[in-house]
Amino acid sequence: MLRTHTCGELRLDHVNQEVTLCGWVQKVRDKGGMLWIDLRDRYGLTQLLFDDSSSTRELLETARTLSREFVISAKGEVIERFSKNDKIDTGAIEVRVTELVILNPAKLPPFLIEDETDGGDDLRMKYRYLDLRRSPVRKNLELRHQVARHTRNYLDDLRFIEVETPVLIKSTPEGARDFVVPSRMNPGEFYALPQSPQTFKQLLMVSGFDRYYQIVKCFRDEDLRADRQPEFTQIDCEMSFVTQEDILNTFEGLIRHLFLKVKNLELPEVPRITYAEAMKRFGSDKPDIRFGMEFVELKGEDRDLTSGKDFVVFDSAELVAGICAPGCAVYTRKQLDELTEWIKRPQIGAKGLIYVRYNEDGSLKSSVDKFYDEATLRQWADAFGAKPGDLMLILPGETDKARKQLNELRLEMGTRLGYRKPDNYRVLWVLDFPLLEYGEDETDPSTGRWYAMHHPFTSPKPEDIALLDTAPGKVRANAYDLVINGVEVGGGSVRIFQKELQQKMFALLGFSPEEAQAQFGFLLNAFEFGAPPHAGIAFGFDRLCSLFGGVDSIRDFIAFPKNNSGRDVMIDSPSPIAPQQMKELSIQVALS
Amino acid sequence: MLRTHTCGELRLDHVNQEVTLCGWVQKVRDKGGMLWIDLRDRYGLTQLLFDDSSSTRELLETARTLSREFVISAKGEVIERFSKNDKIDTGAIEVRVTELVILNPAKLPPFLIEDETDGGDDLRMKYRYLDLRRSPVRKNLELRHQVARHTRNYLDDLRFIEVETPVLIKSTPEGARDFVVPSRMNPGEFYALPQSPQTFKQLLMVSGFDRYYQIVKCFRDEDLRADRQPEFTQIDCEMSFVTQEDILNTFEGLIRHLFLKVKNLELPEVPRITYAEAMKRFGSDKPDIRFGMEFVELKGEDRDLTSGKDFVVFDSAELVAGICAPGCAVYTRKQLDELTEWIKRPQIGAKGLIYVRYNEDGSLKSSVDKFYDEATLRQWADAFGAKPGDLMLILPGETDKARKQLNELRLEMGTRLGYRKPDNYRVLWVLDFPLLEYGEDETDPSTGRWYAMHHPFTSPKPEDIALLDTAPGKVRANAYDLVINGVEVGGGSVRIFQKELQQKMFALLGFSPEEAQAQFGFLLNAFEFGAPPHAGIAFGFDRLCSLFGGVDSIRDFIAFPKNNSGRDVMIDSPSPIAPQQMKELSIQVALS
Repeated sequence: MLRTHTCGELRLDHVNQEVTLCGWVQKVRDKGGMLWIDLRDRYGLTQLLFDDSSSTRELLETARTLSREFVISAKGEVIERFSKNDKIDTGAIEVRVTELVILNPAKLPPFLIEDETDGGDDLRMKYRYLDLRRSPVRKNLELRHQVARHTRNYLDDLRFIEVETPVLIKSTPEGARDFVVPSRMNPGEFYALPQSPQTFKQLLMVSGFDRYYQIVKCFRDEDLRADRQPEFTQIDCEMSFVTQEDILNTFEGLIRHLFLKVKNLELPEVPRITYAEAMKRFGSDKPDIRFGMEFVELKGEDRDLTSGKDFVVFDSAELVAGICAPGCAVYTRKQLDELTEWIKRPQIGAKGLIYVRYNEDGSLKSSVDKFYDEATLRQWADAFGAKPGDLMLILPGETDKARKQLNELRLEMGTRLGYRKPDNYRVLWVLDFPLLEYGEDETDPSTGRWYAMHHPFTSPKPEDIALLDTAPGKVRANAYDLVINGVEVGGGSVRIFQKELQQKMFALLGFSPEEAQAQFGFLLNAFEFGAPPHAGIAFGFDRLCSLFGGVDSIRDFIAFPKNNSGRDVMIDSPSPIAPQQMKELSIQVALS
Repeated sequence: MLRTHTCGELRLDHVNQEVTLCGWVQKVRDKGGMLWIDLRDRYGLTQLLFDDSSSTRELLETARTLSREFVISAKGEVIERFSKNDKIDTGAIEVRVTELVILNPAKLPPFLIEDETDGGDDLRMKYRYLDLRRSPVRKNLELRHQVARHTRNYLDDLRFIEVETPVLIKSTPEGARDFVVPSRMNPGEFYALPQSPQTFKQLLMVSGFDRYYQIVKCFRDEDLRADRQPEFTQIDCEMSFVTQEDILNTFEGLIRHLFLKVKNLELPEVPRITYAEAMKRFGSDKPDIRFGMEFVELKGEDRDLTSGKDFVVFDSAELVAGICAPGCAVYTRKQLDELTEWIKRPQIGAKGLIYVRYNEDGSLKSSVDKFYDEATLRQWADAFGAKPGDLMLILPGETDKARKQLNELRLEMGTRLGYRKPDNYRVLWVLDFPLLEYGEDETDPSTGRWYAMHHPFTSPKPEDIALLDTAPGKVRANAYDLVINGVEVGGGSVRIFQKELQQKMFALLGFSPEEAQAQFGFLLNAFEFGAPPHAGIAFGFDRLCSLFGGVDSIRDFIAFPKNNSGRDVMIDSPSPIAPQQMKELSIQVALS
């Protein structure tokens, strides 16, 4: 090796040893006859010392030519430091340099290579290889490695086997858009990149692999929202001869294992909630349960505490529900107006916001005092379980819409009240998702059709199978999501493993028998040769890592991410290709 | 779980326990009032027993409907077996079934699901999910998992960090053909799939990651020879601040670790040979050193034992060299003729084959007795170190050609003599490859140009740098291959890390400065901001697994391989895509 030690390992024990270190110049301090250099590598920082007494003039002169990010090798003796630096692990020592080699000089980097940098997003993306030198960015990727490692250890111990499934597969019409790859050897034909290895992992169950996993790249050609990437990584798992309960236990175990190994946290048992309950109590299929502020329905299926007082807005509403924000009765009129404007923005689209203040003196004051007397308001306050000092925020409307709006309000208030700390982890299973959802037909927007909420291979609950013919929208699936801090981290389902049921499902989704056979014939055929009951789950690996890192953006946990236009600005990709290359692939560019 | 135990775990200890097993019906034997079923899962086989005395009539009737590959669940009591079966781990017991559920019936599979099957290649590829049920195929993939697992353990312990590099990258002109992916969001532009993460791992070194690895899919759109796949997996590694010696030691350690963990074999120290020496002694840059039969030069650089006897064939040859096949003096004329025909085939292209028999009685007999007296032949035999009973086989010709032909002959004789047993492992480092090789220019076949033998980022040996300007073909690279049993399993190099040298290399390879900047500007720029000395290696993971498995074909170690036309015949891919999809991607099919 070109070094005897890393920049993170020298201690008082090493004093008097001769060592050679290699790394990057982090900082140079020149004080008269003395020169100090902080030398950096992945493992830490070590202080190098050059002084008149021990260094030759040539050495000092060379050292004075160094500046930030030069790559050097320095040989010298470890000495005890006069004034220790407690902030770094090597702070008790320094190296008095006797030989210095400049391995590579460096231009001044376009931004500071420090924990806090002065570089903007675009600049840091263009020079990603420099941004990756910064310790917070590198630590994110080290954490990612640890999450992968402990995932594998856990699953390996349970006799899961990692199997690589192909990247060049077949395009399928269902779901998001595929990336495609023209085949040179099969002119006019295309491979597709997998959105997930779904059918392959099911085939592996048919093959008797029993327990499969893979940490695997997947691809989706969708318009990129702030936090989507065209290529992303999944922890993909499947098991045979199991029930939903077995999957929940096995993968709750995985999450608990990861929290323990990566965050040194003992998770309590993970609570479970049905989709229907989650929607009712939180207005979301991925509720953030780090805090309460659950929905209280003043008017709904179970009761009506609002009607008959001539308040048309409530009287005409299907649902009147609200949340109780602790300690917010002190909100000023201005604050409440601002909150009302916030919720009326088109992204959320509420018509307005009703409030009831439960003042510290016990009195109640609302924006609907014209319609409701104090006795009614007190009834509401009881329903909310409100205490003096609390603020009740109430929305009326069509049930689904009002719940969605109230969910946004709840999350906003949770944020404002500091209830959503990234290092406070609350994990939740959401169960019993609907099997199907109704949507516009892409090819003919005037009509609608059923779409699979999870995917077409998800099994309905056995007790709901009869509803497939009569009320498809009411059929619940054996599908489950794992939610951490309001973020969907994983999801899966018990699969259909019988050909007839799978065919029925395809028919419901608008496939003709021929289309189903053309697209998924291999799977339908496989089901005829002895398919076992099986179920599985997939976790968004980038997302999981960002949660463990306490950071919102997945981009910070991907070594070389793409921007919102799907571009890698560092390597300048995608890019045009040569006409000869297109000719070989039997394709042409056809700009519209 | 739907089962209490797997089909591989019941022993005498379990006798009298009530258990439930799930699996596939392997075999049914019906003998009067008794019925036995072998139930199979990934973990083993267990015998189920149904009999008149303990089973109800309904149960027996249901059991009689079972046939091969039905998926069932069976509950019953573990009993000691009357006659034990030592061949299987569960052979001491059987399960007397009291409840039977048919989880899924099965059509008769198109070939036998046994260790030895009656299915041909095409049929087994089409029904790959059934072929994967066969124990030898499944074991290959289990071995693959173990190789990956132990690779990660070894590298993790050495503080390597696994970093995922992107799959959607930029097309580059050098090397093999890229697969490309049209970008919908960037019309007219394309991503490419990586042939290797080469530039990204070098950028990670520039980023200070110090030690990187990745077990990663790579892609090459090449015409597929028998044992190539369009997508394949690499163990990709890179280290900073190291010399070639450090890489050799680190990865010799990896290989030794894998042999120990996967094969329970202690490897001896891995010998090293230079490229030049390998060519001289074996005629190959990947010599199979499981056996000797090294080349002996009768006429070459060092001596000439053939000239001056009027044998024009030898006199006009640049090289006369041969091998000595032990015990083959008994070869009949017919056998020798057949061997001569074999080596004259166009694939090898030798003009003929000269032999000298060293008979058991001590006499020498050759096919060139007309020209060479016994004294000369005896001189040759001494040069070969031949013993009575040996056969010397000699080829004349132009040095490089003759060596290649003689390499084929040596391997063939090694096979015939049984010297090439798959479970006898001999590992070898081949060092000091040439940096460049001269070849035809693809765009203008009338001229030639230099090509990088390894890749354009490989560093020349420092002592050979001066030759870059005067004799590029003589420049040796700091490049190395790991060879096991005559198969190149891994290769790598010390990299160029200085911009000027990298630019010079691109210029030698025929890139204009503008082309070099357009294609690799990000890397050249990165080298200006403090690039450390670095070096790396990549192993062909599929190949490595097939070697550990003692099997020639990598296809057997890939779950879902493609055929020689790059087709996945199981899912029928590649396939045409919808016109709408092409429109969105701004491409058209243009068949020529």
